[in-house]
Amino acid sequence: MRLRVDLLPHGNYPDVVVVIDVLRATTTAVAYLERGADALLLTRTPEVALALRPEVGEAGENRPLVLGGERGGLPIPGFDFGNSPVEAAAQNFTGKTVVMNTTNGTDAAHVAAQTGKHILLASLTNAHAAARRARALATEEIAIVCAGTDARVSLEDVYAAGVLAEYLLALGGFSIDDGARIALTMRRNVGNPIEALSSSVHGERLGQLGLGEDVRYAAQVSTSTLVPVLVSGEDVPEGTLKFTAG
Amino acid sequence: MRLRVDLLPHGNYPDVVVVIDVLRATTTAVAYLERGADALLLTRTPEVALALRPEVGEAGENRPLVLGGERGGLPIPGFDFGNSPVEAAAQNFTGKTVVMNTTNGTDAAHVAAQTGKHILLASLTNAHAAARRARALATEEIAIVCAGTDARVSLEDVYAAGVLAEYLLALGGFSIDDGARIALTMRRNVGNPIEALSSSVHGERLGQLGLGEDVRYAAQVSTSTLVPVLVSGEDVPEGTLKFTAG
Repeated sequence: MRLRVDLLPHGNYPDVVVVIDVLRATTTAVAYLERGADALLLTRTPEVALALRPEVGEAGENRPLVLGGERGGLPIPGFDFGNSPVEAAAQNFTGKTVVMNTTNGTDAAHVAAQTGKHILLASLTNAHAAARRARALATEEIAIVCAGTDARVSLEDVYAAGVLAEYLLALGGFSIDDGARIALTMRRNVGNPIEALSSSVHGERLGQLGLGEDVRYAAQVSTSTLVPVLVSGEDVPEGTLKFTAG
Repeated sequence: MRLRVDLLPHGNYPDVVVVIDVLRATTTAVAYLERGADALLLTRTPEVALALRPEVGEAGENRPLVLGGERGGLPIPGFDFGNSPVEAAAQNFTGKTVVMNTTNGTDAAHVAAQTGKHILLASLTNAHAAARRARALATEEIAIVCAGTDARVSLEDVYAAGVLAEYLLALGGFSIDDGARIALTMRRNVGNPIEALSSSVHGERLGQLGLGEDVRYAAQVSTSTLVPVLVSGEDVPEGTLKFTAG
């Protein structure tokens, strides 16, 4: 079994793909499911998300679709929520489907879905569960894909990939690539999760935006056993990927 | 002054760019200059290189242009040399211009040259000299760009980037990005250069191809003070970048 870590999305995934965007898309995705959401729809663009929004008049507390996302760390006009796991964790999403679009994470999921057989979303908060699920599904390769930030490598994603890789290696039977060695080395030498995340370029920027609580939330390890898993079906709107708690 | 390490070529370089392809393009480039070559022409494609080759009849020992390169680690049909620093170091290139095309390194140089003001080629063999030259030229940013292998991150390039970054940080006055932190962490935790290079995916493949001597050659640190520097001029053929010993 091959364990591969792509420090940026690459493509050509033959088997299981685990997409990581610690700050903050995949952390927030897990939080939505923890707070009762039925499903997540990750859209290719903000426009696809807005087109799914019900007409005015249908809105209100009972509306089954809500929109969450960000551009450059800030909420998108017309969306109900930002991309904040702290905000998500404070709400009740029971019976809701959350439509998500973010700067890097949703793109990475779409790249993964072009070829992968099984697509999972992972963060530090569900790291152990995601690793176990990936191992159970894989027949030849687990590719851990770091979303990065605007096509540049993000320390926090590489660190989280190292946490997952460490769990997987403990299960045994993997050959690893250079990306996995880099992720493991970072996980073992950059300090604890809160140090790694808060000292990253993206973590520092979120702190400056007043979103330091999100960084601290994202640094929690394996507090959730829920793993967003890509599902197919006739009810999935074009330009979206549907994830449910697998 | 910003120090940025791109673990894969990205683009948008405003100032100094240092391109690294340790196994083997930039190591071989330095070896050609050490053995007397007047200049290197890095071509966009193998076809551009072959088109520069003189007609049959002009060939012979006194021919001023020779071709060196590889695809998948192996020599290109019609080329005079592979991409081997050991082979280069055993020849005399005095008075010659070497036309180079390789799988990853020459592409990375072309990406760098699209926007960068000063483009240098670095390897472990000229690491100290390349770092000093970059520092002398830079006014706002030094970007160290790892060529990688087929759009995936290569351990040996990240390790060498860490060696350069360490030299630069010793000179003082830099802010660093996540890529630089990753490179520095790898340089400090993956063992000595021969361990790092020979255990990389690419290093292992070269060993299997019988090219282990090239890996050992490339693991020498700062044995050369020559730095290939991009120069412009009317005599530079289209689709090529001309480097001379700066």
